[in-house]
Amino acid sequence: MREVAVLGVGMTRFGELGDRSFREIGIEAGFQALVDAKLSSHELEAFYLGNMASGSLLDQEHIAPLILDYAGLSPHHFPAVRVEGGGASGALALHQGYLDVASGAHDVVVVGGAEKLTDVSDYDAARITNSTADHEWEIVFGATLPGLWALMARRHMYEFGTTRDQMASVAVQAHENASRNPNAHFRNRLSLQAVRDATPVAEPLGVFDCAPVSDGAAAVVLGPLEIARQHTDTPVRILASQVATDTMALQHRRELTTLDSTRLAAERSFAQAKRAPKDVDVAEVDDCYTISAILSMEDLGFVDKGRGGPMFADGAWTLGSHPTVNSSGGLKAQGRPFGAVGVAQVVELVRQLSGEAKDRQVSGARLGLAQNLGGTGATSVVHLLERVN
Amino acid sequence: MREVAVLGVGMTRFGELGDRSFREIGIEAGFQALVDAKLSSHELEAFYLGNMASGSLLDQEHIAPLILDYAGLSPHHFPAVRVEGGGASGALALHQGYLDVASGAHDVVVVGGAEKLTDVSDYDAARITNSTADHEWEIVFGATLPGLWALMARRHMYEFGTTRDQMASVAVQAHENASRNPNAHFRNRLSLQAVRDATPVAEPLGVFDCAPVSDGAAAVVLGPLEIARQHTDTPVRILASQVATDTMALQHRRELTTLDSTRLAAERSFAQAKRAPKDVDVAEVDDCYTISAILSMEDLGFVDKGRGGPMFADGAWTLGSHPTVNSSGGLKAQGRPFGAVGVAQVVELVRQLSGEAKDRQVSGARLGLAQNLGGTGATSVVHLLERVN
Repeated sequence: MREVAVLGVGMTRFGELGDRSFREIGIEAGFQALVDAKLSSHELEAFYLGNMASGSLLDQEHIAPLILDYAGLSPHHFPAVRVEGGGASGALALHQGYLDVASGAHDVVVVGGAEKLTDVSDYDAARITNSTADHEWEIVFGATLPGLWALMARRHMYEFGTTRDQMASVAVQAHENASRNPNAHFRNRLSLQAVRDATPVAEPLGVFDCAPVSDGAAAVVLGPLEIARQHTDTPVRILASQVATDTMALQHRRELTTLDSTRLAAERSFAQAKRAPKDVDVAEVDDCYTISAILSMEDLGFVDKGRGGPMFADGAWTLGSHPTVNSSGGLKAQGRPFGAVGVAQVVELVRQLSGEAKDRQVSGARLGLAQNLGGTGATSVVHLLERVN
Repeated sequence: MREVAVLGVGMTRFGELGDRSFREIGIEAGFQALVDAKLSSHELEAFYLGNMASGSLLDQEHIAPLILDYAGLSPHHFPAVRVEGGGASGALALHQGYLDVASGAHDVVVVGGAEKLTDVSDYDAARITNSTADHEWEIVFGATLPGLWALMARRHMYEFGTTRDQMASVAVQAHENASRNPNAHFRNRLSLQAVRDATPVAEPLGVFDCAPVSDGAAAVVLGPLEIARQHTDTPVRILASQVATDTMALQHRRELTTLDSTRLAAERSFAQAKRAPKDVDVAEVDDCYTISAILSMEDLGFVDKGRGGPMFADGAWTLGSHPTVNSSGGLKAQGRPFGAVGVAQVVELVRQLSGEAKDRQVSGARLGLAQNLGGTGATSVVHLLERVN
């Protein structure tokens, strides 16, 4: 396999972008990434898109070539492929772009993620969120995605003594970091008390334990490592790209308090990269719900099972810590435009590893990890990225 | 890039399978392919799924890991990725599986396509079909997918003198071939007169010019060429796998009578394979509408532009001809379960190239071509497969 590097990155602000179309945000992120990679559009060779909801919400399937239209790229006729895996759609698209470059099929590949979710009804937003869990075994019986995560939270509290406030601290930290991120959906700080007192969604999870639905787009340009220096002064190589799965329905899992898909994707990633969790300087993990960040940090191997809650509460992973977790603000505060999330995580890592993260720069960051979840973890995608010298 | 071979194939009957669930047909096709490849399920390493409609029709996104559940494979936790590109979803999934094996990331990869389309309302079937064209520029103004293909047919008639009966002959040939295919949706023969007199859908296209919507599933197992002999006595290698795109909306195209995406995907495929159209023995081309088969044969390079209609009418591509076109019966008569189509095309080619196509065997077939379209050709995928000695 060829070694793969990131040549450029771009993203829009995440949030309620009611004045901007899907078209506009897709183009903005893509062109930012092209400019960052010092490329013009005719040099692109393939396009992968992470998008979840356009079929259900817009009656528009087959959307990857349409994004090329939007961006004025259709005269180039290059491959355009949509990849979908719930909330993990963006990271799966990145995985496919990685394999494409690694195989030698194409040299310069753009991976984008884009979603417009705030201008639909609450009913449709809930419907599309729930469509990432098992419809026949879970959703038709009244379960919801936050309800399923709440089950996992309750069991984690029971088995390991995880507390309400430990979970709340995940959201507090996310908003603290997002306050330094001009692209974040929410830049306000939150107090523990505010998270604790928020309207319940599915107990023990309140509204501030749940990432929002957002509009937004993100893009990265990939290419073989040997050409990276032509495009950037601070090349970042992809050391590992791994996907693992689990059952869709919670009741079929080995246990409720471990995300086996994350555990396995992480093990495979660290093996591929010949690195260990202790080497990671910056991590973007999937905090679609506060409990998911706790499970993820445990299952990625950063801390023993059951210790995730106390670590968050103790501030072990705040900005500047080793590792720093979700310097972007994460899904909770940077925002959650489903298909764009996994791509935006890598945009944040590349900015950190390139020393371009400004007010939230983690000094000397060299190794970054991104972990993106679909549903309640039926899909996990892990990427490891490292600054080249 | 590593050379990639097909280790095994499987498919269900296509048609109105009202008594069988999505789950059942997915499993049947997959296990047939595994048995054909002499593999057991724990030897699989990754899964790609072509599926278009599960989000829109079933409120079920994130369906690739769910299919692993259905098949009892979820304990293996291997990667599962859904790929979507309208009617080309199946061939795009195959392209991703090909790149995966070619890159060296995985050795044994299953590619499946599955769709259940006959147990939804006519309204939903039309909605999902139309969702493969440009919603904002075409569909909201009242265009339909057959209506758009009808525009292309009219223009082809005007420019090249293509006749109603030449188009009808595509359907007649498809049904003739399907009469020999036990998996076909329609096994009845059709007369030219019947096609000509059928209820108009979008003139000049009548109901027998349009492929149906079907239920069905198909699967292929891919692996590196060097291990192929361990799995099959008649290895078939993938000589080329290429994707090209065009604008979604017809009005933005260079012209109405050429599918530039097919032309380019074919040029790139023949260049990759170092073969020419004259070398092809069996071709499965996308006859979603009779006119699409005519355009496709021209744009794949089998015949000069404008000559496709007379060639079909003259029987130049019937069973046993060089090349034989759509020995399976094509989308028109074997059936059209969107996401399964591109995979089923390759199942047919592999059976032809392995000498296992029974009543419809093309004697001595060595080189096969599959071409799969999304929408009105915004996506084209071309594969070239060759029997190894």
